[in-house]
Amino acid sequence: MTTGTRHDGRAPDELREIRITRNWLDHAEGSVLVEFGRTRVLCAASFTEGVPRWRRGSGKGWTTAEYAMLPRATHTRSERESVKGRIGGRTHEISRLVGRSLRAVVDLEALGENTIQIDCDVLQADGGTRTAAITGAFVALVDAVESARSQGLIKASAEPVVGSVCAVSVGVVDGEPVLDLDYEEDVTADTDMNVVMTGDGRYVEVQGTAEGVPFDRELLDALLDVAAEGCAELTARQQAAFGADDMGGADSHEVGADVDQGPPTW
Amino acid sequence: MTTGTRHDGRAPDELREIRITRNWLDHAEGSVLVEFGRTRVLCAASFTEGVPRWRRGSGKGWTTAEYAMLPRATHTRSERESVKGRIGGRTHEISRLVGRSLRAVVDLEALGENTIQIDCDVLQADGGTRTAAITGAFVALVDAVESARSQGLIKASAEPVVGSVCAVSVGVVDGEPVLDLDYEEDVTADTDMNVVMTGDGRYVEVQGTAEGVPFDRELLDALLDVAAEGCAELTARQQAAFGADDMGGADSHEVGADVDQGPPTW
Amino acid sequence: MTTGTRHDGRAPDELREIRITRNWLDHAEGSVLVEFGRTRVLCAASFTEGVPRWRRGSGKGWTTAEYAMLPRATHTRSERESVKGRIGGRTHEISRLVGRSLRAVVDLEALGENTIQIDCDVLQADGGTRTAAITGAFVALVDAVESARSQGLIKASAEPVVGSVCAVSVGVVDGEPVLDLDYEEDVTADTDMNVVMTGDGRYVEVQGTAEGVPFDRELLDALLDVAAEGCAELTARQQAAFGADDMGGADSHEVGADVDQGPPTW
Amino acid sequence: MTTGTRHDGRAPDELREIRITRNWLDHAEGSVLVEFGRTRVLCAASFTEGVPRWRRGSGKGWTTAEYAMLPRATHTRSERESVKGRIGGRTHEISRLVGRSLRAVVDLEALGENTIQIDCDVLQADGGTRTAAITGAFVALVDAVESARSQGLIKASAEPVVGSVCAVSVGVVDGEPVLDLDYEEDVTADTDMNVVMTGDGRYVEVQGTAEGVPFDRELLDALLDVAAEGCAELTARQQAAFGADDMGGADSHEVGADVDQGPPTW
Amino acid sequence: MTTGTRHDGRAPDELREIRITRNWLDHAEGSVLVEFGRTRVLCAASFTEGVPRWRRGSGKGWTTAEYAMLPRATHTRSERESVKGRIGGRTHEISRLVGRSLRAVVDLEALGENTIQIDCDVLQADGGTRTAAITGAFVALVDAVESARSQGLIKASAEPVVGSVCAVSVGVVDGEPVLDLDYEEDVTADTDMNVVMTGDGRYVEVQGTAEGVPFDRELLDALLDVAAEGCAELTARQQAAFGADDMGGADSHEVGADVDQGPPTW
Amino acid sequence: MTTGTRHDGRAPDELREIRITRNWLDHAEGSVLVEFGRTRVLCAASFTEGVPRWRRGSGKGWTTAEYAMLPRATHTRSERESVKGRIGGRTHEISRLVGRSLRAVVDLEALGENTIQIDCDVLQADGGTRTAAITGAFVALVDAVESARSQGLIKASAEPVVGSVCAVSVGVVDGEPVLDLDYEEDVTADTDMNVVMTGDGRYVEVQGTAEGVPFDRELLDALLDVAAEGCAELTARQQAAFGADDMGGADSHEVGADVDQGPPTW
Repeated sequence: MTTGTRHDGRAPDELREIRITRNWLDHAEGSVLVEFGRTRVLCAASFTEGVPRWRRGSGKGWTTAEYAMLPRATHTRSERESVKGRIGGRTHEISRLVGRSLRAVVDLEALGENTIQIDCDVLQADGGTRTAAITGAFVALVDAVESARSQGLIKASAEPVVGSVCAVSVGVVDGEPVLDLDYEEDVTADTDMNVVMTGDGRYVEVQGTAEGVPFDRELLDALLDVAAEGCAELTARQQAAFGADDMGGADSHEVGADVDQGPPTW
Repeated sequence: MTTGTRHDGRAPDELREIRITRNWLDHAEGSVLVEFGRTRVLCAASFTEGVPRWRRGSGKGWTTAEYAMLPRATHTRSERESVKGRIGGRTHEISRLVGRSLRAVVDLEALGENTIQIDCDVLQADGGTRTAAITGAFVALVDAVESARSQGLIKASAEPVVGSVCAVSVGVVDGEPVLDLDYEEDVTADTDMNVVMTGDGRYVEVQGTAEGVPFDRELLDALLDVAAEGCAELTARQQAAFGADDMGGADSHEVGADVDQGPPTW
Repeated sequence: MTTGTRHDGRAPDELREIRITRNWLDHAEGSVLVEFGRTRVLCAASFTEGVPRWRRGSGKGWTTAEYAMLPRATHTRSERESVKGRIGGRTHEISRLVGRSLRAVVDLEALGENTIQIDCDVLQADGGTRTAAITGAFVALVDAVESARSQGLIKASAEPVVGSVCAVSVGVVDGEPVLDLDYEEDVTADTDMNVVMTGDGRYVEVQGTAEGVPFDRELLDALLDVAAEGCAELTARQQAAFGADDMGGADSHEVGADVDQGPPTW
Repeated sequence: MTTGTRHDGRAPDELREIRITRNWLDHAEGSVLVEFGRTRVLCAASFTEGVPRWRRGSGKGWTTAEYAMLPRATHTRSERESVKGRIGGRTHEISRLVGRSLRAVVDLEALGENTIQIDCDVLQADGGTRTAAITGAFVALVDAVESARSQGLIKASAEPVVGSVCAVSVGVVDGEPVLDLDYEEDVTADTDMNVVMTGDGRYVEVQGTAEGVPFDRELLDALLDVAAEGCAELTARQQAAFGADDMGGADSHEVGADVDQGPPTW
Repeated sequence: MTTGTRHDGRAPDELREIRITRNWLDHAEGSVLVEFGRTRVLCAASFTEGVPRWRRGSGKGWTTAEYAMLPRATHTRSERESVKGRIGGRTHEISRLVGRSLRAVVDLEALGENTIQIDCDVLQADGGTRTAAITGAFVALVDAVESARSQGLIKASAEPVVGSVCAVSVGVVDGEPVLDLDYEEDVTADTDMNVVMTGDGRYVEVQGTAEGVPFDRELLDALLDVAAEGCAELTARQQAAFGADDMGGADSHEVGADVDQGPPTW
Repeated sequence: MTTGTRHDGRAPDELREIRITRNWLDHAEGSVLVEFGRTRVLCAASFTEGVPRWRRGSGKGWTTAEYAMLPRATHTRSERESVKGRIGGRTHEISRLVGRSLRAVVDLEALGENTIQIDCDVLQADGGTRTAAITGAFVALVDAVESARSQGLIKASAEPVVGSVCAVSVGVVDGEPVLDLDYEEDVTADTDMNVVMTGDGRYVEVQGTAEGVPFDRELLDALLDVAAEGCAELTARQQAAFGADDMGGADSHEVGADVDQGPPTW
């Protein structure tokens, strides 16, 4: 898209190295260690029968998320929110964003009165922790659904996952729209936008912020274009993560995917 | 823009009745009761000399905001956050949004080492409380700056307010983009977007969310168009609120405005 | 009663300008904006069916109150109790006082297993916020009861409100007992007393405090005399607030009042 | 005063057995175990040099109090406020009352920039815990002042304690005013009043409450009369507690008392 | 055991003066004021029918404990945990230790679905508060069980208390193992060990800590020897406390004791 | 030591597979992922110049630790302590234990006025999380010290680390003492003991608990023997972890080790 060079040598529309490691934990129904470069987020999906009190008898399930950072995920240590005795605004905001993003691709009726709780814990932060969290959490969620299906906790015919979802950050660095900002870029960016998209290219969430100079419509459009490219690529990485598993044959029942035909194609 | 009719008879791109009442309080350096239809938000701007510890010696000021709802602002009473002992995620999120939006038009260096604290308390809620809060808070902030200037707390030549800011919600109701949703529309809308814009038509914040069906680029573009119209109209209302005052002549020194030429024209 | 002049020109036994505006909110079953001079308190009465767990099956209702101040109600901004994470002693104390005062004129058995929750939020403080809150809250409570009656939630024949209640402050300023102190008087007063009385002149609560010089019995008696005068006047204002409504005819069913005969006469 | 008999055989104007044991603790500068019948409160007065930040440089000292109950002070166990994570309204209210009552007889200027912190912990509750706390706390405070004087922390000539203070409850039981209610009487009383008085018969605090039937002026006067009798008797008991010590001669410098002439006579 | 002399003249293996006063409170089912020298702990045992939710239907009872210090138990005042809004680590740790220690000698099945809640409140601290708490709490617990038995709340034949438990501290002072350290010894000790033992000489808990120099096996063995001596002596004191009561004959049914044969002999 | 077989085939005195991965994080001055079988703890050591306020001017440094579990470290999800708003007793207890254990081998004077904060976050729990935390934290601490030395923040000649420390659990399973219990063994064990030892075989902390049957001295001795074997083996693994690094030569300055002679030999 452009010709400038970024501090780490990436092209403006190039993602960092993406790694999605499934089943990183032994106990959780679904778990993923997702890495966007040096950003490293552990996503655990816990499937439990039953729903919170306010939802009982509705016939519908519930999916929610909590995001947090280990104290030394960052360059200098931050105090624990458990020690402070309260959750900060940023933590609340991202937890809610992750939850909404996942619910956008979950058919809560098909889930039945079951709950999927997602925990996204940032082990190391280098920019883009919320977008990595959403991207990894979706994979963990699918695995938790399949785990529940294999135990008969949801019907074989039910398809609670009706699409895929991933997220990426875009921003303006040195006047140019760039994809998937790391921490160094993030602190210098004029505008920061997080875009959550489905695998078929629709928007779940668009959050653009100008703490510095307000941005115009043309720039907004350019940022949306770059984000769409990035999300398409991330969707492919999610599919590959599932596909790798297919090839191993270990747990070959895939969401909405015919195992004869490769990874899912939401 | 369209031909459908809304439950309260408004055109799709029509704002509710907007009222901006300045100086609603006697003690605050700036205060506004802002009404978007039945939504009623009291915005108080407190100017204090000095800045938080982490900013001392920087030569720069600080502007921040807190948003809250009275327990019976809503249809059914909500428990107080002071009684619960913790601030909810939504409150945190909106407080941060209001603060960021205002900082986008404040030159903190020109403010000097002074703090403007904005309090937005929703007295009655009928949809769009955060957008009303931003729109009213800006007016209160300008009045607080002028109050400080008149007391010599900031230099006569300093112009800490470098633009105006307002906000409006847009959403998709019955498949059609509509402006400034009230509560009844809000609960049925598929997509909800809050757009914060400057008086000269640039974006400070764009937050679009699809809890239901994800939306495509075309719809996103249509929503952004409607929001831009709404913000232009709100900017005019803010100018009128200042202008009314000019005519009375009581506190005729306006931000960036030559009093000979009417209300400010950011 | 005396000949001295107060800083605002009032006689020692003169109330500030009292305004009682009913139905200030659209959602609440009862709501009043009450003003004692520049003190401005929004009182909302929420009627809900059912009672707290500890009271279920008793056949009796419950009435309670919460008092709070907006952060910029005062001359300088105070931190929010929700942000501090705890309710202060003063807030607790006044909330309990308002609740007890209202319960003194409510027949909880006649209320049935229903709850009336009163919220008194001080929008602007200039002395006497707790007495204004009690005086306004009573009016909001009556409206909430009537709202419930009109919806058939309490029996037509039930009379849960068995009297009226109001409150006023008295204190010693420059050696003289004065009525309804504003903030400026309050900070210089030697003795401060809040008196809560019924419409028929009996005491619900007497709270006299001497942070400075202890007071003798003679002075106590003089203060009680002035307070009784003030409460009689406030009772008349409450009746007028209901009466004004009768004339409009909009919601003419009054508590214990025959509409042919004017306002209630507890 | 009257002829009725109380459940424990006391006359209407008779106190329970009062015991004031000084120096119950080894570390505190002043400490008293005060007993009003089965009500047992441990009062500790801690003298420290220096004052809270907001008071530094004022030349004045500070005196404050905290009241609390052990979980099993009561008939059935109550949860600890430390475990609940918040202080209840009643606790706050009584702590503030005790602090105000003591400050009424302390000359904070004479105290110099020193702090006396009073802790009143109810070991066993049988009604009247707040009045016992005030009565005992005053004695502990005097001992703390003398301890500081003997260590040269306040000047020999300074007299920070300018009077004595004690408190008693009165109430209406079976239609009759009675003094110093125990728990059984307290729960059946129509009106409950706590009166804090100085040794010379003036009022520091009057708090009368009618949760049940409002009371008239005549009854109020009768209650104030009984309370005055009770406080006079409690003042004598406080003097006796100091006098006993005088006789031992151990720490014979008494507040405002000439040791040749027996106990202090505020 | 050794020849050195301690600052208070005790032999290295000598306990401080131990006092166990039963029934110090009127309301609690069991209560003990236990004193180890100047350390003074009030132990209250509350017996209630029923168990916490997580244990219902199990047929088993529950026993737990809470430990706390009054603010002026110590040489200088400590802030209340209720005021801080959180329980400190040390408090938590000791509460858990006391609970575990008591459960080691309670047959929860024999207790039936009943709860014994122990509260240990340190009125004065001079070292060894946790060991005094355990030693006193056991006696209060036995009394609470007997109180419940006498009211028919547990079966006459049930023996929920299957042994006795007590605790003592040992440490290394001036290179020598000593028993039951007071505060002055505690702050200078190299190693601090708390040992909880049953009446028949077995271990319930061993907690040895070297904040200073790590200790070797030989020293560990010596400390365990001294602790065993101390616990044997404390067991005798507990028996004596019950025995004194037997002689009075008031509540002569003792746990596991034949009243013809004197105090219990766990 | 014995002949029984454990459910995972280990000998009674056999550790699980131990892995110590240094530098698992990029930002922290020292970091280790330590694994005891499936138990996986991330230990980060943060070195900062300066000390907490209470220690300033002492010339001494400070070392402390915080322990926590991710919500899905366990078989079923636990609620976050940050969400609950308070730290549980177990968390507090282990944090304090880890801090004390490390301070036993740190010369705080040699550290100078610097702080090392250790964070131990359990990513996956399968028994023995606190012992793994201590064992891994020591290695992270050494790396943090070396990092500070290489940046000149502590003197080249200073040796703040005066020994090594590690920890292991022992318990009685099926009547036999076994080493390094996993979760399955832990829940069935009669006695549970955690032993913290230095590299030269001395004790830093001994914590033995019998929730079930109290244990006798003979069993205590046997457990201490097994623990000593385990700690010797863990010390060797710590040395190996450092040694592996020596061979790479990257950061060859070892604590108390002559680089010509291989890994440190505390």
